[in-house]
Amino acid sequence: MPYQTLYRDGDGAVILDQTRLPFGVAHRRLQRLEDAADAIRSMQVRGAPLIGATAACGVALAMQTDASDAALASALDVLGATRPTAVNLHWALARMQAALTALRAADRMAVAWSEFAAICAEDIATNAAIGRHGLELIRRIAGARGDRPVRVMTHCNAGWLATLGHGTALAPVYAAQGAGIAVEVWVSETRPRNQGLLTAWELRDAGVAHRLIADNAAGLLMSRGEVDLVITGADRVAANGDTANKIGTYLKALAAHDNGVPFYIAAPRSTIDHDCPSGADIPIEERDGDEVRHVHGMAAGQADIVAIALPGAAVANPAFDVTPARLITAIVTEVGVVPPERLHQLATGASG
Amino acid sequence: MPYQTLYRDGDGAVILDQTRLPFGVAHRRLQRLEDAADAIRSMQVRGAPLIGATAACGVALAMQTDASDAALASALDVLGATRPTAVNLHWALARMQAALTALRAADRMAVAWSEFAAICAEDIATNAAIGRHGLELIRRIAGARGDRPVRVMTHCNAGWLATLGHGTALAPVYAAQGAGIAVEVWVSETRPRNQGLLTAWELRDAGVAHRLIADNAAGLLMSRGEVDLVITGADRVAANGDTANKIGTYLKALAAHDNGVPFYIAAPRSTIDHDCPSGADIPIEERDGDEVRHVHGMAAGQADIVAIALPGAAVANPAFDVTPARLITAIVTEVGVVPPERLHQLATGASG
Repeated sequence: MPYQTLYRDGDGAVILDQTRLPFGVAHRRLQRLEDAADAIRSMQVRGAPLIGATAACGVALAMQTDASDAALASALDVLGATRPTAVNLHWALARMQAALTALRAADRMAVAWSEFAAICAEDIATNAAIGRHGLELIRRIAGARGDRPVRVMTHCNAGWLATLGHGTALAPVYAAQGAGIAVEVWVSETRPRNQGLLTAWELRDAGVAHRLIADNAAGLLMSRGEVDLVITGADRVAANGDTANKIGTYLKALAAHDNGVPFYIAAPRSTIDHDCPSGADIPIEERDGDEVRHVHGMAAGQADIVAIALPGAAVANPAFDVTPARLITAIVTEVGVVPPERLHQLATGASG
Repeated sequence: MPYQTLYRDGDGAVILDQTRLPFGVAHRRLQRLEDAADAIRSMQVRGAPLIGATAACGVALAMQTDASDAALASALDVLGATRPTAVNLHWALARMQAALTALRAADRMAVAWSEFAAICAEDIATNAAIGRHGLELIRRIAGARGDRPVRVMTHCNAGWLATLGHGTALAPVYAAQGAGIAVEVWVSETRPRNQGLLTAWELRDAGVAHRLIADNAAGLLMSRGEVDLVITGADRVAANGDTANKIGTYLKALAAHDNGVPFYIAAPRSTIDHDCPSGADIPIEERDGDEVRHVHGMAAGQADIVAIALPGAAVANPAFDVTPARLITAIVTEVGVVPPERLHQLATGASG
């Protein structure tokens, strides 16, 4: 983990601007509430846990300027409207609200920063625990496979870039590497925003073997027996285990099911929305069509062309899909590996 | 159909260079055998029927220079090695071989051009027949849907660009439009080569309503009930109905099956390989990893970045996958709509 994704710096905060990766490393300073909201909307920060922490940071930034009841309510509203699907956003804002509402305005700024720091520290500890529990799954497969590396497929980026540290889906991979277990990761590029490149960048830096693939290749690889398990992150897990995650996750879960490959979701308990009965109740974000229209025309041996292909073309660009619980082997949380049908056992104190 | 994909022009031939679409319209002259082989390898022409016709054209070009037995054998070898998966290539070459082998060298050039012309003319007629048979499937759904358009999902490009005319998967769409049935097409971009953009370009030109999507979005749209049927082309259909088509087709078939959406393959009988028992026997082409590495980094509101992301990154880039027959509702051929388990009834005279 060569960089921090988000940290307090004096009277502001600093993020790693993920829209520039893997082409370059750039940081951006967040000074005001609106900076934090913009960073979330534009996906300069992304990944459910990091979105939550950035929202908490946004509340702290707002309290520096104006710690009135009205300003607090407004900050919660603005940040809550940035992205609809990841429930960690609402979890973090609810936590900030609970910590700040009863306080006098004069006390709010300091407590906001301290609650933000607690969220960050807990995220790191939570993800480390996810890594330990997921490690046992990988260790069992490694035992059965003998000398060959365990081949993990993931989707999008649920590595340290998506969190404050360790990652969710990649935490078990890093833990396995630390335990001396050979792993190889299939990295799906994750159109339209190519977050798979973030995963490849992370894994290269960490020295974990990996191969980049087009999203379309997942089914063939599984049908050939080249995948031992799939692990992805999540943006929201409904009470019945249905899981919203980056668009395309459902297709990988179908292919895993069709080929007898175990399919795991790695997510902290803060991603489980016990108030959301099923996947049909999870709001799915629709993003700008230019994310799909904007392509790189590759003309072999000729000048490369970059453009909006087909300007004005009608586009649908849902950013997430829902994987039904019946396709999910288990959810790897900080308190253990839980099959979807037993999720309700985590309901009490789930947001602790 | 504003352009011809391939036509004879004096002592050569002309192709529409599909690697430049949809950004620009460019033609390329084929003068020698190697020009035809290169056009196939580089995907300046692509699509199983068009690959077959271009190979036949390559044989005719070779015969102009040297019509000896050795030259004929060499031309068949060179063209047969260009791309491994689409069986139409071998079908067309076998047909050229059968037409030319017994002839005197002096007669071969004229017969080669005439056989090429016959292959082209038959492809157009065949695809028109596929369109008529597929139209009946769409008409039945339209009857059940009332006033709402029939929503077809396709993958890659199996339109007129992939053939000499009409297309395979898109032939029923064009036939429906001609019959006054409202259709709307979900166009999957088809990474890594973005042939979905060719489909969008075709459909826009033809005035057929369509929306472009990332490949990853197929499952969500089907789970929302936004797809009435899926139709794709094929590169090779095995005797048992297992079908090789562009990478990602299998994922769409899984999603269709999971959501009760009918899944059709549209292909001429020349795409059915009765000598290939099952999908496991179909060779799958692995293409250059730079097709996946080469991406467009989209930095919202900032300068666009185009580069090889992660130079040297390990990549797997299989160009096709295999959809098992059990996921295929039926195969739409020029002689009718045939369920996979009845394909053997087409075996006699299938290549006529």
